[in-house]
Amino acid sequence: MSEPDANWPRAKPPLRDRYSASGVDIDAAHQAVERYRDIAAGWRHPAQLEGIGAFAGAFRLPGDERRALVASTDGVGTKTLIAAALRRYRTVGADLVNHCVNDILVLNATPLFFLDYLAVGKLDAAIAGEIVAGVNDACRAHDTALLGGETAEMPGLYEADHFDLAGTIVGIVDVDAIPNIERVQAGDAIVGLPAHGLHTNGYSLARATIPQEEWAAYGDALLAEHPSYYRSVRAIQDVADVKAMAHITGGGLADNVPRTLPATCKAIFEQSRWTVPLFIADLVRRSDLPHDERYRTLNMGIGFTLIVSTADAMKALAAVPEAKVIGWIEAREPGEPAAVIHPVRTA
Amino acid sequence: MSEPDANWPRAKPPLRDRYSASGVDIDAAHQAVERYRDIAAGWRHPAQLEGIGAFAGAFRLPGDERRALVASTDGVGTKTLIAAALRRYRTVGADLVNHCVNDILVLNATPLFFLDYLAVGKLDAAIAGEIVAGVNDACRAHDTALLGGETAEMPGLYEADHFDLAGTIVGIVDVDAIPNIERVQAGDAIVGLPAHGLHTNGYSLARATIPQEEWAAYGDALLAEHPSYYRSVRAIQDVADVKAMAHITGGGLADNVPRTLPATCKAIFEQSRWTVPLFIADLVRRSDLPHDERYRTLNMGIGFTLIVSTADAMKALAAVPEAKVIGWIEAREPGEPAAVIHPVRTA
Repeated sequence: MSEPDANWPRAKPPLRDRYSASGVDIDAAHQAVERYRDIAAGWRHPAQLEGIGAFAGAFRLPGDERRALVASTDGVGTKTLIAAALRRYRTVGADLVNHCVNDILVLNATPLFFLDYLAVGKLDAAIAGEIVAGVNDACRAHDTALLGGETAEMPGLYEADHFDLAGTIVGIVDVDAIPNIERVQAGDAIVGLPAHGLHTNGYSLARATIPQEEWAAYGDALLAEHPSYYRSVRAIQDVADVKAMAHITGGGLADNVPRTLPATCKAIFEQSRWTVPLFIADLVRRSDLPHDERYRTLNMGIGFTLIVSTADAMKALAAVPEAKVIGWIEAREPGEPAAVIHPVRTA
Repeated sequence: MSEPDANWPRAKPPLRDRYSASGVDIDAAHQAVERYRDIAAGWRHPAQLEGIGAFAGAFRLPGDERRALVASTDGVGTKTLIAAALRRYRTVGADLVNHCVNDILVLNATPLFFLDYLAVGKLDAAIAGEIVAGVNDACRAHDTALLGGETAEMPGLYEADHFDLAGTIVGIVDVDAIPNIERVQAGDAIVGLPAHGLHTNGYSLARATIPQEEWAAYGDALLAEHPSYYRSVRAIQDVADVKAMAHITGGGLADNVPRTLPATCKAIFEQSRWTVPLFIADLVRRSDLPHDERYRTLNMGIGFTLIVSTADAMKALAAVPEAKVIGWIEAREPGEPAAVIHPVRTA
């Protein structure tokens, strides 16, 4: 099987191309998004609402236009290769469901149901059962129906012991309760909720950096469960007026938070306000990942952000003890970047 | 890359294991379904309706319990390997969307929106754009929003030029309009709508039977588009009382039609009533597929079935000229098979 990153830790390319050398092409991803935008521009269903930062799509409910269905499809990436190598299949289901729950939570939606897609090279009923049991448990934890799924055995496309896992969530929201990000303003605080490990992003880099013979030693960190932020967010919303939210997935803090800001605002992050988890700090060190790329490739210890007034930030921290103020919003002049990350506190 | 079926046409296993030798393990699939059933039995969301033959799941709409959302996830199987080998990417999107439309049509649902999942070894924006354009066109043909999607680049899991494509559809139905299959009775007619090629099933067998150097010659047949039966079914419903429907996917006529029959009924198919398409007949011959396995592995030329009274069958055929009566319903005694296929007409 072609493994474009297999030789990488031994023959290091220039720093700037580090992540690309692990086999993930960010430029190609941007080009694909451009093409999708052109395709979507050709026709848009009248019931479709403008998305917020493309975390999820929203569709007005036929016959009850004050409500919208909110849906998102995602996968767990090459985390499955580590799960397969370590034969630990129980946690990827929660990774998948929680990722999707967080995506529609950005639009304030409550999950209704979920469907999974499991693709394997050779079907082993015990392994498939373990994976789907994990999906089912995570659905149940959110009072969400596991409404269906597909298991596909595809010899020739997957190696016998490999698998891919993706899923789709559908939730519901009152259209008036979808965050209006235009309310975000200079002086607002960015509240961060802690990540547990890499979640479901950066695994091509991790696999290229950590040799497979070390995976078992790092197993708990590599397979740490992508948490759901549902209950923390609801607890904060009970005490604070949340103006915008972001799920920190591929693209990191640097790309995801700006997706939910008005064009007149930028996000300032102060790295000194939270601690980068040891495993992520070690991965950054071993991969020589430059400062700018760190906050696009990895979550750097923050899994979800909420933007609130500074007065409400104190209430949010009281409601959810693990929450931290990780930065604030400033006015953005034309041409300025939408996110700035200070490695140490400067103010 | 491991290719369990590569040697198969040269060293033929016993007839009964033919499909299994192509790398798809029907027994493992049944075992996995058993495990999923056990998992699902542990908890069921109160809004979840009993499915019909597991083609799709249904979930009562919160706040309007006379309606239900109907959802299904599916993929296009290893048809993607043929599309990738022939570099013909435009049709797999329609295969995927139409497959999903047909699945929820079994519950009489009208599609609302769709989300796709595209996984690649190496992202090529032009190819991804072509695939997603096909998805978009097929959505538009059903007035269905392409609400979102995920494109994942996963080096190490997929070979550089390979891809997998899956998707999820969500539709809506009045709960009273979901077919009540208990109304099916002996004497009813089975109306079949013609398939175009293999649709999205039997590709592991096809790849094992037809050497890759012949794929280009068979390209149009191998990549024939999985049709949507939406308009044909609606046209038949305008003139006939449709009691049950089935989408003929993996498992063929033999497994899919019985999934929508009461336990007291069996389906009798008369092969003489329709013509097996030349390409499928040739595949059966070249693979030495035994009679019983043909109707489980391949669609044998029928893509969708509807059960109506014999009086209504004539109206259905008048409304949709390509429809055919392909069999009828008989009373089933305990222990009898739920489907019988007569290779030639016996009555």
